[in-house]
Amino acid sequence: MTSDQLAIHTFTTKPWSIDECIENYARHGFGGISIWRETVEGEDLARVSRRLKDSGLKPVSYVRGGFFTGTTAEARRQAIDNNLRIIRDSETLGLPMIVLVCGATPGQSPRENLSQIQDSIAAILPAAENAGIRLAIEPLHPMYAGDRCAVATMADANDLCEALNHPLLGVAADVYHIWWDSKLEQEITRCAAADRLFAFHVCDFKADLEHPLLDRELPGQGLGTCARVNDLVKAAGFSGMTEVEIFSRRYWTENQHQFLEKIKAACAPLR
Amino acid sequence: MTSDQLAIHTFTTKPWSIDECIENYARHGFGGISIWRETVEGEDLARVSRRLKDSGLKPVSYVRGGFFTGTTAEARRQAIDNNLRIIRDSETLGLPMIVLVCGATPGQSPRENLSQIQDSIAAILPAAENAGIRLAIEPLHPMYAGDRCAVATMADANDLCEALNHPLLGVAADVYHIWWDSKLEQEITRCAAADRLFAFHVCDFKADLEHPLLDRELPGQGLGTCARVNDLVKAAGFSGMTEVEIFSRRYWTENQHQFLEKIKAACAPLR
Repeated sequence: MTSDQLAIHTFTTKPWSIDECIENYARHGFGGISIWRETVEGEDLARVSRRLKDSGLKPVSYVRGGFFTGTTAEARRQAIDNNLRIIRDSETLGLPMIVLVCGATPGQSPRENLSQIQDSIAAILPAAENAGIRLAIEPLHPMYAGDRCAVATMADANDLCEALNHPLLGVAADVYHIWWDSKLEQEITRCAAADRLFAFHVCDFKADLEHPLLDRELPGQGLGTCARVNDLVKAAGFSGMTEVEIFSRRYWTENQHQFLEKIKAACAPLR
Repeated sequence: MTSDQLAIHTFTTKPWSIDECIENYARHGFGGISIWRETVEGEDLARVSRRLKDSGLKPVSYVRGGFFTGTTAEARRQAIDNNLRIIRDSETLGLPMIVLVCGATPGQSPRENLSQIQDSIAAILPAAENAGIRLAIEPLHPMYAGDRCAVATMADANDLCEALNHPLLGVAADVYHIWWDSKLEQEITRCAAADRLFAFHVCDFKADLEHPLLDRELPGQGLGTCARVNDLVKAAGFSGMTEVEIFSRRYWTENQHQFLEKIKAACAPLR
């Protein structure tokens, strides 16, 4: 895969400001960018949008909405309001898609969490439709199913999409989160066949994590799951940009230009 | 749940020898014991068996067989031989069931791993039948699916059991590994309905793990998933002993008698 087929998530180069991300991703020859809310906090979003247009980078997604669950109706209503704001910000930034990390509340069962998630996505879909922005549900690894995201498999995400059945609602498939699933091929096929495979993220999983969130690896450097899942996603017909989303305390201490070159080299063997 | 309904896994009190485990579990009023191979390494198993009989503790399971996968036929044959030895040892110890942690080899897909696991279990079932020993496939959390156990869900375990369809082959359901699954209720019901729910382990999952293997919690002290899964398992008709299997570097530094009393208190609210 050549670098113009890759989009970088700004959290991947966490030490950089949004201006540094835009300038350097373009300079290193990457094709696109996905912007994290953390990277543009306190920024003038209209200014960022102009800068993004000038860069020639393809705007891929805004990361991340969601976190819909809560034990009270008031908490869930606030989460919906927050997501409506995120949709407006995404529109201002010129980003056509929002990645949803859907939330999970300790003490609630997966079914309770998923039911709240479904209701809340239903509540924000009209605003997404008005803005013409796609929503991509991202299943997270079951490590995070208790406190971050009850959508723990491609099947969970596909089930939600089927229940809500809206052309702007689909799935973000991230290798880091889904590689382990014996039902992966059938669920990727199911997702793509319904035109719901909106996004594909690469990042490798390490067997012996040193941190539950921030110890992710370059494709091929961990368990080596990216090539297989990339093949499945491409065989299912996915033709969008491949997004690189690596959180790593280790890589963040390195020179970020060199890190980008390592990403390029690690993704090159992917078809 | 009273302590006579609980069996302790010897790895839970890792600092203790097998003799200390047997003596102290009985003294603290626990009903049963599951013995780890690590705890009896180098021991005269016939002597341990006599000591176990004298203690009045119910022998529950031998932990753990499995690790069947490998990139070469020779590696897989050695794993089968090892499991045949484990079956003989389990018989010597008087333990009626072996827990299988089935293995996963980095670089192999879940499907490849599961296919090798199925073939290898088929190869050891006749020996288990001769010994009258039950084999319990334990699904492990998907954190471990790349290098320890490709059986990552109750569905995977149920599928394997269905494919091999043998009355001595069933499933060990461990809260730590399966709490996150939105399909859990249906898969526990499916397992129990086929008389395959052989074992039930309790241990709570922490959201922010400090170690990928050795940072497990007492029921109710982590995400609080044990009560819900315990209810599901009991509603499905499970009537065996509830096994306590907690690996924790933190608890291992404490007085193990006090740790056992904490376990008793933490399990008391479970139905």
